[in-house]
Amino acid sequence: MSITATAKPLHSGDIDFLKNLVGDKYVFTDEASLIQYSHDETEHLSYLPNVVVKPGTTEEIAAIMKYCNAHIIPVTPRGGGTGLSGGALPHLGGVLLSTERLNKIIEIDERNLQVITEPGVITEILQEAVKEKGLFYPPDPSSKGSCFIGGNIAENSGGPKAVKYGVVKDYVLNLQLVLPTGEIIWTGANVLKNSTGYNLTQLVVGSEGTLGIVTKIVLKLIPLPKYDLLMLVPFANLEKASEAVSSIFRAGFVPSALELVEIDALKIVSTMVDSHAVPVNDAIAAHLIIEVDGNNQEVLMNEMEAISELLMQYDAGEIFFADDAQQKAELWKLRRRAAEAVKSNGYTIEEDTVVPRAELPKLIKAVKQLGAEHGFHAVCYGHAGDGNLHIRINHPTIKNSYGNEEMTTILRKLFEIVHGLGGIISGEHGIGLIQKSYMDIVFDAVSLNIMRNIKKAFDPNNILNPGKIFDLN
Amino acid sequence: MSITATAKPLHSGDIDFLKNLVGDKYVFTDEASLIQYSHDETEHLSYLPNVVVKPGTTEEIAAIMKYCNAHIIPVTPRGGGTGLSGGALPHLGGVLLSTERLNKIIEIDERNLQVITEPGVITEILQEAVKEKGLFYPPDPSSKGSCFIGGNIAENSGGPKAVKYGVVKDYVLNLQLVLPTGEIIWTGANVLKNSTGYNLTQLVVGSEGTLGIVTKIVLKLIPLPKYDLLMLVPFANLEKASEAVSSIFRAGFVPSALELVEIDALKIVSTMVDSHAVPVNDAIAAHLIIEVDGNNQEVLMNEMEAISELLMQYDAGEIFFADDAQQKAELWKLRRRAAEAVKSNGYTIEEDTVVPRAELPKLIKAVKQLGAEHGFHAVCYGHAGDGNLHIRINHPTIKNSYGNEEMTTILRKLFEIVHGLGGIISGEHGIGLIQKSYMDIVFDAVSLNIMRNIKKAFDPNNILNPGKIFDLN
Repeated sequence: MSITATAKPLHSGDIDFLKNLVGDKYVFTDEASLIQYSHDETEHLSYLPNVVVKPGTTEEIAAIMKYCNAHIIPVTPRGGGTGLSGGALPHLGGVLLSTERLNKIIEIDERNLQVITEPGVITEILQEAVKEKGLFYPPDPSSKGSCFIGGNIAENSGGPKAVKYGVVKDYVLNLQLVLPTGEIIWTGANVLKNSTGYNLTQLVVGSEGTLGIVTKIVLKLIPLPKYDLLMLVPFANLEKASEAVSSIFRAGFVPSALELVEIDALKIVSTMVDSHAVPVNDAIAAHLIIEVDGNNQEVLMNEMEAISELLMQYDAGEIFFADDAQQKAELWKLRRRAAEAVKSNGYTIEEDTVVPRAELPKLIKAVKQLGAEHGFHAVCYGHAGDGNLHIRINHPTIKNSYGNEEMTTILRKLFEIVHGLGGIISGEHGIGLIQKSYMDIVFDAVSLNIMRNIKKAFDPNNILNPGKIFDLN
Repeated sequence: MSITATAKPLHSGDIDFLKNLVGDKYVFTDEASLIQYSHDETEHLSYLPNVVVKPGTTEEIAAIMKYCNAHIIPVTPRGGGTGLSGGALPHLGGVLLSTERLNKIIEIDERNLQVITEPGVITEILQEAVKEKGLFYPPDPSSKGSCFIGGNIAENSGGPKAVKYGVVKDYVLNLQLVLPTGEIIWTGANVLKNSTGYNLTQLVVGSEGTLGIVTKIVLKLIPLPKYDLLMLVPFANLEKASEAVSSIFRAGFVPSALELVEIDALKIVSTMVDSHAVPVNDAIAAHLIIEVDGNNQEVLMNEMEAISELLMQYDAGEIFFADDAQQKAELWKLRRRAAEAVKSNGYTIEEDTVVPRAELPKLIKAVKQLGAEHGFHAVCYGHAGDGNLHIRINHPTIKNSYGNEEMTTILRKLFEIVHGLGGIISGEHGIGLIQKSYMDIVFDAVSLNIMRNIKKAFDPNNILNPGKIFDLN
């Protein structure tokens, strides 16, 4: 890991203020704590904060922001620390503000199918809690077992279910937000439709903790579908697999998941996960994982059958149907652990490109060609139904994309291809620190300037998560 | 109608500029044209513009904005003129910019299930065009036969299908926008997921033409469901009807429409529309219109049956099932023409409140009580499944809410009740001109100030649709 010094030392008075406010035991300046909060899941990057603070209430967070705003101290908010774009890295030092103590589900409103929660709740815990009431909160990033719902709001996370059910932004009704200047606001109302003023809620979702710190979240829930069916479909040809993806929608089907996993990724994962189900052999180039869900078992069976038939036109191999809950869980585990598996095998640089779904074959072809030209190996997997492809890069010598000239050249080429296909840099991971130098590929100077002015409207002193998404000046 | 003089006269040079730019025949200063564009469907309000301009291209609109920005001339953009909050009224005079010539559907992308359209396309025409390809664009405001898709973007319109399929914001992927300063930008990309920078797309949706003029629109489409079933359910008690609404969702059903129409509204409509189907008698207080849709006829039949049984617990009367396409069309016509019917019968003031759906009974009760206290009659109808209630007010002497002191007092009381129930002022009509004085009820000064600063980030000279949603100073 490369540890960079902080930009600006804090005074002992600053630490005293924080200790008085939230209590001694929630303010950390010891080396072990600083190192622990210096990195997330982004490549091999690490930046030490001056201090780690764990406030327990909205009001404490407001007081911290007021103080830091007055003293021009950078504050980096952090959720579960599972980010993949460096959004929670305190690259300028200052205060690392962890939301981990705001971890209560405040209310599951069964009358209105809503949940009110604090941001530090782990996504899977939230999902399970509402599931017990027969309700469903669909967005489920691969890191759902450790990521926070607040971080999901910051990144506008997706996950496999997004293809049918949408991403985080489609479930957020209202947010309590501590502004960088310390005021507390609500961004909207707890309603399903809202044409009242600018949509501050949607502006904050995906703003990567740069516009305010979310302290309460109101989410829409939907009835939990009763059944789901899952199948794994092998393809001898990667492009055929990705062509098959858009054909499914064109034929009128809306699967509840439609994932693509390239064989190299699956090979690595299957060595880590105890799995008997998945065929891994040299005749296979990629798999599609396809799930349908609903309230009628028979209808789902017919749907799966019709989709299977359709896939035969794209030279699909022998289809494996997950027969029971255990087989389903095993299959999903394989998919969910793909990122972790390939990362630990040297694929340290992850891209999160998204294109209109029918352009996936072109994107995959371009990735492979780029790898051949620049001497790296790439594996692809991801939410093919959304056109959202995770590209993991294993370069023999370059392990971090951030600040590396050669990798920057490679990624600029990649993103220019993506942009040319009508796509964009990030579908669900955010821009954070490591992608910000590519923003000019997809947004012109006028648009970026508007974003900067919006940032100034919320954060005139540029103290909240500064230097993420874009540099202000 | 009350016609107010313009705030600032234009010079003949301004008119010459516009004529040179877009051609003489698309610039209007004659009285008949000015009057034609002086009003929309909002109460009895009318404000004359100085000039009506009908540009034909994005570039012409950009040139108009550049000119008006340099000369500080207010520009009011206008779509189909069906607005209900005065958003398209040129209350400060200046340039009325009609988008009616930007009326082409540019491309229906069947590979990616997207449509690219200009803003001046009538919503129903767009819906029919994609339907011919087996695709579905769900948002369908009652005015769909005459409103423009561009206006729908401005107001974040909804309609009956929103309860299952969401509102306009859930379908907008990307917008070409002419800024108030005359630059042309794209707000996002043509992709289903996007975590790349601030969500300018969602910020523009529902911003009522105050942040820019939308000149191209990329919409997500979904496969068209094959079947739908429709029923009309009478209730002897209005509150029971509204209680039944939330019970349907709690039982796990997601109808594709769930409308409530109070009997007084239906009585008026049924005199205007030739309908045999609908029972209108004094034992009935309200009807629910319930639709389910999907790809399996039998499943839908079972669903309708289960919902019917559930409704019996809420003292539903004899249910009328629409048997064929004609009966369905008749029923929908009754619902769609409710606004027009009651308006022409003296109910000139329309509110568009929205509350969490289980709070509907309380809201309806409060409306009736307020009417009794203040001597007006109100009828309610709307998208009950979304908690979105249209309240039409017939006051013996007050016909416009805007600028009327007594009606302002009444509406403040109403909106305070709505806010107390967790609701908000407008669900789909927007704030425009006539609701802006109530914004302080639902947003505090800090939030409003942020909105003002966002407006300034886009429109430093405050020339695009100034004085809508809020006053800048």
